[in-house]
Amino acid sequence: MANSLDTFLFVSIAVALISFAFAAWLFSWVKSRPSENARIAEVGEYIREGAHTFLRKEYVMLAKFAGAAAFLIILFLPRPIWAGNPAENIVMAISYLAGTVFSAVAGVIGIRVATVANVKTAEAAQQGIKPSFMAGFRGGAVMGMAVVGSTLLGVALIMLITKNTTDLLGFSFGASSLALFAKAGGGIFTKTADLSADLVGKVELGIPEDDPRNPAVIADNVGDNVGDVAGMGADLFDSNVASLAAALVLASVLDSAAGNMINSSMVLCYASLGLIASILGVAMARMGDKGPTHALNNSTYYTTGIFIALTAVATILFGFQWRIWGASVSGLLVGVIIGIATDYYTDDTKKPVQTAAKASEDGPALTILSGVSYGFLSVLPAMVGIAIAALVAYKLCEPIGEGYAMFGIAMAAVGMLSIVGMIISNDAYGPIVDNARGLAEMGSLGEDIVEITDQLDSAGNTVKAITKGFAIAAAGLTVIALLGAFTSEVNAAAAEHGVAGITGFDIMDPVVFFGMLVGAAVPSVFSAMLMIGVNRNAERMIAEIHRQFNEIIGLKEGSPGVIPEYARCIEIATVGALHELIPAGLVAILITLGVGFIGGVKAIGGFLTGNIVSGLLLALFMSNAGGLWDNTKKYIESGHHGGKGSAAHKAAVTGDTVGDPFKDTAGPSINTQITVVSLIASLAASLFLTYSLF
Amino acid sequence: MANSLDTFLFVSIAVALISFAFAAWLFSWVKSRPSENARIAEVGEYIREGAHTFLRKEYVMLAKFAGAAAFLIILFLPRPIWAGNPAENIVMAISYLAGTVFSAVAGVIGIRVATVANVKTAEAAQQGIKPSFMAGFRGGAVMGMAVVGSTLLGVALIMLITKNTTDLLGFSFGASSLALFAKAGGGIFTKTADLSADLVGKVELGIPEDDPRNPAVIADNVGDNVGDVAGMGADLFDSNVASLAAALVLASVLDSAAGNMINSSMVLCYASLGLIASILGVAMARMGDKGPTHALNNSTYYTTGIFIALTAVATILFGFQWRIWGASVSGLLVGVIIGIATDYYTDDTKKPVQTAAKASEDGPALTILSGVSYGFLSVLPAMVGIAIAALVAYKLCEPIGEGYAMFGIAMAAVGMLSIVGMIISNDAYGPIVDNARGLAEMGSLGEDIVEITDQLDSAGNTVKAITKGFAIAAAGLTVIALLGAFTSEVNAAAAEHGVAGITGFDIMDPVVFFGMLVGAAVPSVFSAMLMIGVNRNAERMIAEIHRQFNEIIGLKEGSPGVIPEYARCIEIATVGALHELIPAGLVAILITLGVGFIGGVKAIGGFLTGNIVSGLLLALFMSNAGGLWDNTKKYIESGHHGGKGSAAHKAAVTGDTVGDPFKDTAGPSINTQITVVSLIASLAASLFLTYSLF
Repeated sequence: MANSLDTFLFVSIAVALISFAFAAWLFSWVKSRPSENARIAEVGEYIREGAHTFLRKEYVMLAKFAGAAAFLIILFLPRPIWAGNPAENIVMAISYLAGTVFSAVAGVIGIRVATVANVKTAEAAQQGIKPSFMAGFRGGAVMGMAVVGSTLLGVALIMLITKNTTDLLGFSFGASSLALFAKAGGGIFTKTADLSADLVGKVELGIPEDDPRNPAVIADNVGDNVGDVAGMGADLFDSNVASLAAALVLASVLDSAAGNMINSSMVLCYASLGLIASILGVAMARMGDKGPTHALNNSTYYTTGIFIALTAVATILFGFQWRIWGASVSGLLVGVIIGIATDYYTDDTKKPVQTAAKASEDGPALTILSGVSYGFLSVLPAMVGIAIAALVAYKLCEPIGEGYAMFGIAMAAVGMLSIVGMIISNDAYGPIVDNARGLAEMGSLGEDIVEITDQLDSAGNTVKAITKGFAIAAAGLTVIALLGAFTSEVNAAAAEHGVAGITGFDIMDPVVFFGMLVGAAVPSVFSAMLMIGVNRNAERMIAEIHRQFNEIIGLKEGSPGVIPEYARCIEIATVGALHELIPAGLVAILITLGVGFIGGVKAIGGFLTGNIVSGLLLALFMSNAGGLWDNTKKYIESGHHGGKGSAAHKAAVTGDTVGDPFKDTAGPSINTQITVVSLIASLAASLFLTYSLF
Repeated sequence: MANSLDTFLFVSIAVALISFAFAAWLFSWVKSRPSENARIAEVGEYIREGAHTFLRKEYVMLAKFAGAAAFLIILFLPRPIWAGNPAENIVMAISYLAGTVFSAVAGVIGIRVATVANVKTAEAAQQGIKPSFMAGFRGGAVMGMAVVGSTLLGVALIMLITKNTTDLLGFSFGASSLALFAKAGGGIFTKTADLSADLVGKVELGIPEDDPRNPAVIADNVGDNVGDVAGMGADLFDSNVASLAAALVLASVLDSAAGNMINSSMVLCYASLGLIASILGVAMARMGDKGPTHALNNSTYYTTGIFIALTAVATILFGFQWRIWGASVSGLLVGVIIGIATDYYTDDTKKPVQTAAKASEDGPALTILSGVSYGFLSVLPAMVGIAIAALVAYKLCEPIGEGYAMFGIAMAAVGMLSIVGMIISNDAYGPIVDNARGLAEMGSLGEDIVEITDQLDSAGNTVKAITKGFAIAAAGLTVIALLGAFTSEVNAAAAEHGVAGITGFDIMDPVVFFGMLVGAAVPSVFSAMLMIGVNRNAERMIAEIHRQFNEIIGLKEGSPGVIPEYARCIEIATVGALHELIPAGLVAILITLGVGFIGGVKAIGGFLTGNIVSGLLLALFMSNAGGLWDNTKKYIESGHHGGKGSAAHKAAVTGDTVGDPFKDTAGPSINTQITVVSLIASLAASLFLTYSLF
């Protein structure tokens, strides 16, 4: 490995350390905000404790899973231990475990900060919306910086130590497999609690959101943290690592052919600059008079601009290819455009939400049908956008030479994910201010303060829709690049075995088509299993809530001093989530292995393609429909079509309840499912080549 | 064209005429059933008139569309008129128009019979369930015989006259484009009426289904006919023609290489035997003591067995390839297995429906989530089944020689669709007995008689779920074969232009990938537009129903002699459906042309694949989720979880209302959308090859 690459690796590590330092500063800033309300502190403590308990139990369970997976890796990957070099397998297993540990650490950091920032944000609301915004935003930014810093640090360390990009795929697989389960577990936890709290509280009894009488209210707030903060962080960590891994695998093939390290260096350079741009974007974020949504979106646009400028300078300085720069920038711009287009379907000033709100007057069935319809429509801009980004990147880079076209797609994904630090900051802001709203309500800070946190919360929802579209698009591009990485792994393995490699996957080949149809069914089965898990769990929790309202005297009436048994609900959510989180992920993994061992690498090529196509479709549909229903409910609550308590409102609450697991459990988990499956395919490429039935 | 083929063409025409004769006999049998109740005759007349009025208006509109399409065909297809032979274009346009006319005639026959058979079935219920079953079943069978007879007659005539398989694609396109709009228009009509009648009647006012006080009740019954009978008939006519066209296109390439006509003969022979098997199956159908579901399913199994036996004999007699026979039989068997697997998700004795029913106790959100979850799960067996059928057919026929592998898939589709006469008979039985139930209720025949028709109706629903799974699977295999036909058209055009043909479509080619992502978005956009159409239309009708209940004195109370203005609701459904039916279909067609002219034939290869994959996924999901909700409601109505009027029932009605446009508008229309798009691609292959941007 050339020295020039080592320089970029050290620079990457340095930038990662800077981001950690910045995160630490942000955390101390958040911690130094004043807080004095005893009730809020008490409830905040409940939430913190619940979140940590769940996370501890979840990670203990996942550690066992990761241990088992590492054992299998030692036996079989990248080659069966009896046919290859055992040392290689051990390094791969260690890379894998490192991926899981980095992912877990990022999750834990996020939770630690979020469960402090929620209290601070609620208290700061008493000083006005601007300080409250800053507490929420900077709390989220800690997560953003931690995740991207970990990505860069992990990738650079693996490269530096193993000097082998295949181990990077192992690291990435570690990150993905943990993300898969963390997202599933957190998603089931949060939506179990949210759905149960809403169904009994809002729909049956008509008590407001976050009412302290509701036994599930703390579990709901815990859920925001374990699902949206930890789960989402793990998800984006995973995409970010995967995009870098795919790009570096492809770059190393090009570099070893050219005898230099320029493409690998470029990947690391762009990734470092993306992190720097995010740091600057976060540091510059201030809330002006145009409100929180404007502030959040502006930081994204600044970060985008800074990244484009910095990479242009670097391209001049280091003599990178302008065409590749173009691919990266086009990826980023398409990402932003997809975000904006997605916004149309979930923004309450636009037609879709307003149509759904009007339809709600005629009952929940029409609310659901409107949401499903607009959700289905909403997939078009993103799918076409991803298609165009891939096509542009490919065509831009094709003239550079063989193999550059696919590398261009990988760099478009890297470009799209370059501002992920900013995206995560915006995203983690959401659950923090959502929690703050609950704390303000439960701490009886008064209507005005709740109103302020409501405003912040609503901005969080809007921004979340945009960042989700962005994240899904980025995952889409990443897995296309992973398809390229898979091909390159297959060809490397084929060369070793002395058999013919593959140049592509022909749709007309029935083995490819077979894989494609099976692959397309996987995201749908996977998300179904998660939703069935939520349903099953929610039924248990609803029964518990009913029991408490029936048995605890004075609870329904809100007699002073009567508090529900919050811990029982947290316990149910925890046990249920831990019970349901393994099967769905395991099914996805086992079907992949099944298809690979039956149909071989060609079937896997089709499988990955079908999986990407249907995965993108369902993820976009579910996220956007869910966002639409959420905002429809908020729109009606703000006084339209009869406002709170009207028939339209009741219908909209039903819509929102359906949308919750769509947008926070199943939809975003599909991202991770696609990535995991792509990585397994690459890692097991050699096995599929040797041991398949066809 | 060899004489042996002509023989088979004449035999096909003869078999088609036999099926028409049998249909005429069945119709006269149905008409000769006694009917005397004046009230039923009156309501039956309303329904007949409403259905015919709608159909007349719809066909007038579609005639204009078909005229415009024929004009464009004369200008551009198969080659632009200035670059090709105008006579060819005129023959193509005539073939196209013939396809539309055959499709329309089959629809009209179906409606004529169904609107007689509904009255006869209701009246026959007074003699007991068996005579009532026979009236309903034989009424449906008229439709089955007419559709399959038209298919065989049309295909044979076009072959005999034009001697050109490309014109067969034109005929098929005519059938498809009419089916697309007929299905969309009928689907929007029926679900507008059904949804509005349910929302105001059952949910708001709590009056029973088919209550004569409900102003939308006649429109609802009209809808069953125009949506489920005419629309469904057009749909299966379309699939049936497309499967034969694809098989004959591929066969003619093989035959002209081999210098004989054996493969084309085989296609016609198998199709004729399928029709004969269906005639025998219908003739043998009797209801025993095991109830109507058993009788319907048994006829399907008999038909399957007869087809397998007859084709085996023919294979021996005419020296066809046993491997191709194997492909056909495997297609048919997989179709039956998919039907049975689909049944699991919609049968009320199985877990999915029972889980959804239990979840309904906690409100409509959980009903919806259960249905969506199981709907998502239900796609797996069918997708895997189609994948396996295609793989088995391909691998079976590959050894015969070049090109036979894809022909094998086409013959698997022909095999699966061979029993379509029986399938349509079972399917058309559904709306007839559904109507009969309404007539029994409105004609005040008493609880016992309504109970009998209820039993027949419930069997119709169960069987419908199976036949729908079957129809979607058949469409899936057919479009895979059409992909083969498309490749063969492209290569024929390429040879003419002296450019290189294509051997396949590589997933790693970004132009293919671009097409795939766009193609995958189309079914989702298409079904969204249809559902938005239903929503919009339903809102208008709900307003009208509210107006009538408010303004017509004594209506709500059911004062004697007070009847609602049924015609106003029929009018609203008609105008709305006609207004909404064109855009969705047009969007699908225009996007196809757009992708073709931008990305050329490679992009179209990807486009068709993406379209098939996501189309199958969504069609299966929507049909099965809809079927599940329907049966969940019926299961609760039969006394479980509190029975009629309970909270669970109200939730289940919401589920059923959401499911109605899923299963009867959007889901099954996707079938047709996939076929239309595949046929356009094949017809415009030469244009895309010459005039594309990339």
